Amino acid sequence: MSSMWGNKVKISLFGESHGVGIGVVIDGLPSGIDIDMQLVTEMMERRAPGRYSGSTSRKEPDIPKVMSGLYRGKTTGTPLCAVIENTDTRSSDYEKTAMKPRPGHADLTGMARYGGANDPRGGGHFSARIMAGFTFAGAVCRQILEKKGVKIFSHIYSISNIEDEPYNPVEMPSDVSRKSFPVLDEAKGLQMQECIIEASRQLDSVGGIVECMATGFPAGLGRPIFGNIESRLASILYAIPAVKGVEFGSGFEVARSRGSINNDHPHFFDNGIRLRSNHAGGVEGGISNGMPVLFRCAFKPTPSIAQAQDTVNLDAMKNDTIEIRGRHDACVVPRALPIVEAAAAICLLDVFEEG
Amino acid sequence: MSSMWGNKVKISLFGESHGVGIGVVIDGLPSGIDIDMQLVTEMMERRAPGRYSGSTSRKEPDIPKVMSGLYRGKTTGTPLCAVIENTDTRSSDYEKTAMKPRPGHADLTGMARYGGANDPRGGGHFSARIMAGFTFAGAVCRQILEKKGVKIFSHIYSISNIEDEPYNPVEMPSDVSRKSFPVLDEAKGLQMQECIIEASRQLDSVGGIVECMATGFPAGLGRPIFGNIESRLASILYAIPAVKGVEFGSGFEVARSRGSINNDHPHFFDNGIRLRSNHAGGVEGGISNGMPVLFRCAFKPTPSIAQAQDTVNLDAMKNDTIEIRGRHDACVVPRALPIVEAAAAICLLDVFEEG
Amino acid sequence: MSSMWGNKVKISLFGESHGVGIGVVIDGLPSGIDIDMQLVTEMMERRAPGRYSGSTSRKEPDIPKVMSGLYRGKTTGTPLCAVIENTDTRSSDYEKTAMKPRPGHADLTGMARYGGANDPRGGGHFSARIMAGFTFAGAVCRQILEKKGVKIFSHIYSISNIEDEPYNPVEMPSDVSRKSFPVLDEAKGLQMQECIIEASRQLDSVGGIVECMATGFPAGLGRPIFGNIESRLASILYAIPAVKGVEFGSGFEVARSRGSINNDHPHFFDNGIRLRSNHAGGVEGGISNGMPVLFRCAFKPTPSIAQAQDTVNLDAMKNDTIEIRGRHDACVVPRALPIVEAAAAICLLDVFEEG
Amino acid sequence: MSSMWGNKVKISLFGESHGVGIGVVIDGLPSGIDIDMQLVTEMMERRAPGRYSGSTSRKEPDIPKVMSGLYRGKTTGTPLCAVIENTDTRSSDYEKTAMKPRPGHADLTGMARYGGANDPRGGGHFSARIMAGFTFAGAVCRQILEKKGVKIFSHIYSISNIEDEPYNPVEMPSDVSRKSFPVLDEAKGLQMQECIIEASRQLDSVGGIVECMATGFPAGLGRPIFGNIESRLASILYAIPAVKGVEFGSGFEVARSRGSINNDHPHFFDNGIRLRSNHAGGVEGGISNGMPVLFRCAFKPTPSIAQAQDTVNLDAMKNDTIEIRGRHDACVVPRALPIVEAAAAICLLDVFEEG
Repeated sequence: MSSMWGNKVKISLFGESHGVGIGVVIDGLPSGIDIDMQLVTEMMERRAPGRYSGSTSRKEPDIPKVMSGLYRGKTTGTPLCAVIENTDTRSSDYEKTAMKPRPGHADLTGMARYGGANDPRGGGHFSARIMAGFTFAGAVCRQILEKKGVKIFSHIYSISNIEDEPYNPVEMPSDVSRKSFPVLDEAKGLQMQECIIEASRQLDSVGGIVECMATGFPAGLGRPIFGNIESRLASILYAIPAVKGVEFGSGFEVARSRGSINNDHPHFFDNGIRLRSNHAGGVEGGISNGMPVLFRCAFKPTPSIAQAQDTVNLDAMKNDTIEIRGRHDACVVPRALPIVEAAAAICLLDVFEEG
Repeated sequence: MSSMWGNKVKISLFGESHGVGIGVVIDGLPSGIDIDMQLVTEMMERRAPGRYSGSTSRKEPDIPKVMSGLYRGKTTGTPLCAVIENTDTRSSDYEKTAMKPRPGHADLTGMARYGGANDPRGGGHFSARIMAGFTFAGAVCRQILEKKGVKIFSHIYSISNIEDEPYNPVEMPSDVSRKSFPVLDEAKGLQMQECIIEASRQLDSVGGIVECMATGFPAGLGRPIFGNIESRLASILYAIPAVKGVEFGSGFEVARSRGSINNDHPHFFDNGIRLRSNHAGGVEGGISNGMPVLFRCAFKPTPSIAQAQDTVNLDAMKNDTIEIRGRHDACVVPRALPIVEAAAAICLLDVFEEG
Repeated sequence: MSSMWGNKVKISLFGESHGVGIGVVIDGLPSGIDIDMQLVTEMMERRAPGRYSGSTSRKEPDIPKVMSGLYRGKTTGTPLCAVIENTDTRSSDYEKTAMKPRPGHADLTGMARYGGANDPRGGGHFSARIMAGFTFAGAVCRQILEKKGVKIFSHIYSISNIEDEPYNPVEMPSDVSRKSFPVLDEAKGLQMQECIIEASRQLDSVGGIVECMATGFPAGLGRPIFGNIESRLASILYAIPAVKGVEFGSGFEVARSRGSINNDHPHFFDNGIRLRSNHAGGVEGGISNGMPVLFRCAFKPTPSIAQAQDTVNLDAMKNDTIEIRGRHDACVVPRALPIVEAAAAICLLDVFEEG
Repeated sequence: MSSMWGNKVKISLFGESHGVGIGVVIDGLPSGIDIDMQLVTEMMERRAPGRYSGSTSRKEPDIPKVMSGLYRGKTTGTPLCAVIENTDTRSSDYEKTAMKPRPGHADLTGMARYGGANDPRGGGHFSARIMAGFTFAGAVCRQILEKKGVKIFSHIYSISNIEDEPYNPVEMPSDVSRKSFPVLDEAKGLQMQECIIEASRQLDSVGGIVECMATGFPAGLGRPIFGNIESRLASILYAIPAVKGVEFGSGFEVARSRGSINNDHPHFFDNGIRLRSNHAGGVEGGISNGMPVLFRCAFKPTPSIAQAQDTVNLDAMKNDTIEIRGRHDACVVPRALPIVEAAAAICLLDVFEEG
C-alpha cells in the first residue's frame, strides 16, 4: 500500500511538489513492447497547465527522463523508471502560510500523519503534481493495452450543473482528447468554460464529473471477491486528488431503478453473445462481461481559492483567515481527464496481465 | 487479491452458496481482546433473511463455528477462522436453469472467468451468501474498534426515490440497528416498505442507498497515495454484491458545489481543532481528519426477479427467456446494512492497526 | 504476510494445536483440474505420526473436510478450503507446564509477540500440527503441477552425521516416498533409524537434512529481483518449524568451489540447449533454467526431549527445570519430507501460474 | 514481488547495469528521522570496486541523488527515491559476446524470461550493480534502526576453505567495517587475500561466506507462520546475486546436533530472562527472542572468469567457447558485506515497523 499499487503490474510513485523531482517505477510490464515516447508526452501535456483559460500559470515542462526499463525503444520487462525534475518551484508562495493549514487540503491531516515532518511546500507528496508520474505510467500502460485492442476514452461529463451529452454505454465513443476542452457537445463546453471563468472571477472554484470508457476489454477478467474490477478501479481512482465519488455503469441511478430495467439481458447477436444494455458498466460480479467498461468520478471544487477563508493559525494557536494566492485552476476537471485515463490504463493492464 | 483483502488485518473468504460450507479466516487481529459471540451473532442475524416483509424465505441458521483464534474468549492474535455449514440448500431451484444465465448475475462472467468449472449453484462463490463470513469478520473487527472508541452506524438512506433523513455529517447519529427496518424517519420507512412490497407484487425489484458513518476514528490515519482511506473503503465496499456506486462526504454533490462552500474550515473549539463542516466525509488527502467518516453506497435492484426475462440458452445456443423462481428479496438494501458496516469495520481496523 | 503466503496462488493457514480445528484456504488455483482426494490423503498420511519407530504415539486421523473450491471433483478456481478437526488433544500434557517455557520452542517468543494471549496448548498456532493444512495444500498443488509435467521428490539426506546417497543433480531421482523410511541407500537408512532410536533411549533427539528435487519445471519462470525462485522457496521453507538452513544446488559448498568448476556450462544436446552440470540447482539469476530445481533444508533436533532441561518458571519468577513428557518424535525429519514437498509444490505452482 | 520487497517498509529497485541510471524507492519509512548522507555514502563506498587487490577496475562514483523523501535532512515519511546515474559504462565489452551466454550468469534465463527483450548489456537488471540502490536503502534503514538501538555487523566468515574466527553468538562483535578487508583474524585475512589473488592469477574465482549479526533487536517481533523473521531475511538475502545458501544460528550444523545441546535454555540473569546460548540465531518460532540475530550466506565464485569456458553460440546455433575479458572481481565476498548488511537493515526495519 502507501504509494505503491498493483498486483501484476505495479507502480511506485515518489516525489514532493517542490522537492528535487518526482517520478514513477513501473514493475511487471510485459516485455518487448514498443513504446512511443511522443504519445507519452502528448498524454502528459494534456495534464499540464495552461491548455484552457482559467488554468494555473505554472509552467512545468515535465519532460520525463527514462532511467531504465526501455531498451531500443521496447519494454525490457524489468522495472521502468521515469524521473521528472521539478524546475519551476516557487516555494515562497507556500512557506509564509505553512502554519495556516489550507482548508480542503491535506495540510492538517499530513501533519497529523507524519508528525509534522512531511514536506509542506505545495502539499508535498499530497500534491496533484505527483500525478505527472502517474500519468506517465498510464501513458505507457495505455499503449500496451491498445496493442491488445483496448481503447480508453474520457470526456468532461459535467462542470457544476452543466452536463455534457453522456456516452452511449454500448458504443465506442468519439475521441475528444485532442480538443482543448474535451466535451462531446461544444455548446455545453462553452457554457462550462464560462462557468469556470465566472467562478474564478469570484475568487471561487467549481467541481465536476469525468466519464471514462474502455472498449475492447475482453470478458472473463478480474476475480471475485476482492480482485474484482470495480474494487480495483475504485481503489486507484480514489488515489487521484479531489475525487469524492466513483460509480460504474448506471451508478447511483441504479438505486432508483428496477430489476426489470437495470438487468442487462444476454442476447445472441451475429458475432456471438452480447448484452443488450450496459447498466452494469461492463462488470458483472466483478468480472468483465465484454461490454465497454464505463465509470464516472466526481471531483470536488479546487480547494485553493483566493478569497479569505477561515482557518486556524498554529503559530498563534488561534483562529485566523487565509487567502491563497498561488497558481491554481478554478476547476481541476479539464486537467484530470488524462489522470483518470491513466488510472484506467494502469488498472486494466494489471487486470489483463493477471489473466 | 482474489478472495483475500487487507494489509495488516487480512481476511480470506471461502465458500460457495450451495457447497459444504462457507467461512472466513481473519489474520492479523490484535491479541488479547474479548470477543462477545452474542454480539457477533446479533450482527449476523441482521443479515439473515426473514426480518422484514418481502425477504426471502430461505432459513439459514448461520451459526458460525469458530475453529481457531479465540482462547478463553479472547483473540489469540493468530488467525481466527469461522466456518458456517450450508444446511438449507435447494440446488434443484438452480440446476434446471444452469444453462440459462440469469440476467444481472455473474453466471456468464463466472463461466468466462473459470472456463465453466466454477460451482454454478446459486451463484457459487459469487453468491451474496459469502457475505455471511464477511459479516462475521466485520462483527469481530467492530468490537475491537469499539474498545478504541470507534462506533459504526448505518441506515437505509433511500429505497427507489424515497429518501430517509440523511445523517448530520458532524454528529454521532442515533443507532437504528435494532429496528426491523432501520431508518431515521419512520414514516419514510413505511413508504419504503410499501415500495418494496409493490415491486415484489409486480414480480420486480428495487434498489437503494445505504449511508454509513464511523465516529471516533482518530485523525492522522491512512496513507497517501494508494493507502488512503477512501481507496481502501471503496475497494472493500465494491466487493459487496450489487454495489455500483460509492461516495464519501458530500460525494457526487461536490461536482455541483463551490470551493468556498465545499471546503471544511478548521476552527479552534473548546477541545481543540475541529472542522466546522464535513463535506469531506472525514478524509482529507486520504488521511482521517478526526471528523466522522461518512460514505454512501448504491445497491442495484435485486437481479433475480420472477417475471420472464430475455436471456440466452447455452444448450440450445439460441435466445430464450427465464423466470427466476428461487427465494429472493425484492430489495437487498435492508439486509445489506450489516454487510456495509462489516466492510467499514474490517477496513477501519486494518487502517487503525497499520498505525 | 503473517499466516498467508503466495502471489498468484495464495494459502491462508489457521488453527491451533489443541483448538477446535486447523486448516487452509487456497486461493488462486487454476480451475477445472481434477483432484484425486485419495492421493491427497496419502501425502498427508506420510506426515502422520506412527509410520516409523521413534514416532509420537498421538493418533490423528487428520481427515480433511473440503468446505469449498471443488465441484464434481474439479477445482472451481475459487477458494478451496479444507478443515481438519482436532480430535486427540490431551491438553493436560501441556497445561501443567504452561508457565515453564520449553527450551527450543516458541513459548517465550509467542508470549512476547502476543502479550500472553496466544493459545499455549501444544504450541498453539506455532505447532508443527499446523503443517497438516499446509501438506493438504501442497498435495493439491502437486497434482496440478504433475499435469504440467512437474514432479517433486524428496529423501532423507542425512540424520545426525549419517548421510544418504545424494541426488544426482542432473537426473530425475527414484521415488522413495512410499518407503516407511525414505532413503536411497537402505543400509544408511537402517543406521539412521538406529541413530534416532538411540537418541530417544537417551531421552534426546537428533536433527537432519532433507533433500528435495523438482523435475520438469520449465525454463524462464520466476522474476528478478525479489520474485526469484530461491527467495520464494526459502521464504516458504523457513515457515516449516525447525528449519534452520536452506541451500540450493551445491549450496554452502559453492563457498569452497571455483568459478571454473561451479559454473554450469550451456551445451547443445540432441533436444536443445541444456546445462552440463547443475551446481546452480536449476535457478540462475533467480529464474528457472530448465534443470532440476534442487535444494536442501536442515532441521534442528526435536526440541521436546524427556530429560530434565533448565528453564525459567514464570509463576515463581526463578530458574527451574522441565521434563517434557508429551508425545514427541526423537527426530522430525522423516515426517518432514511431505511438508518440504508441499512447500515446493505450493511455491512452484505459484511461480508457474504467475507465468 | 518482482523488484519490490517489503511489508511495511517497502523498496522498489530499478535500473540496468548499462542503462541511464539505477536507483531505489523506499516507501513506508518512519517520518522525522535524521539521515546522515555522509554515513550513507560511506556504506555505499564499501560496495564500490577498488578497495582491495583483485577488485574490478570499473570506477563508479555512485553518487546517489535524492529526489524525494527528505526535507531539511529528515525523512518525510513519504517515499524516498534515490537515483544513481550510470557514468562509466563500457558496453562494447559485452555486446560482442551478447549471443554467447556467459556460464553462471542470468544471460540464458533472462532471455527465456523476457523473450529476449531484456537489456543484455552487463547483465542488465540482473547485474550486481543494481545492489548500489539496495545498499543505499540499507544505509538509510540502518540509521533508523540504530536510533532504536539495533546495530548490524558483518565480516568475511570464509573465502574458499580459509575461515575467519566466527562471531560469538551471544555477544556484540567488534566492528571491522572500516577495515579494507573486514575479518576478525588479520592473519586469516591475509591468507584469504592471497587465495583470491592466486585464483585471479589462474584466471579463476573463489567463493566464500559472509556472517552477519544484528544486536539489540527486541524480543517479540515477527509473526508466524510466513511473516517470520527467517523467511523474510532469507527472502531478501536470496535476492543478492550469487547467494546459494542461507542459514541461521547454528545453521546446517543443527542437523548434526542433539536437542539437549541445540536447545537454548532460558535463564534469569540480573537484567531479566535471556537464553544461555544462541543456537537459534535469535529467532525461535519465527519470532525474535532478544538474542543477537545471527545468520550466514554462501556466495558462489564470481561466474565471470577470463579463462576459456564452454558455452553455446546462439547466432551460429552450435557449441562454442567464451573468454570473459570485462572488469570483474575474482571474489565477490568482500564487496558483498555492505549488501548483506543492507538486506539485514531493510528486513529488520520492516519487521520492526510492523510492530
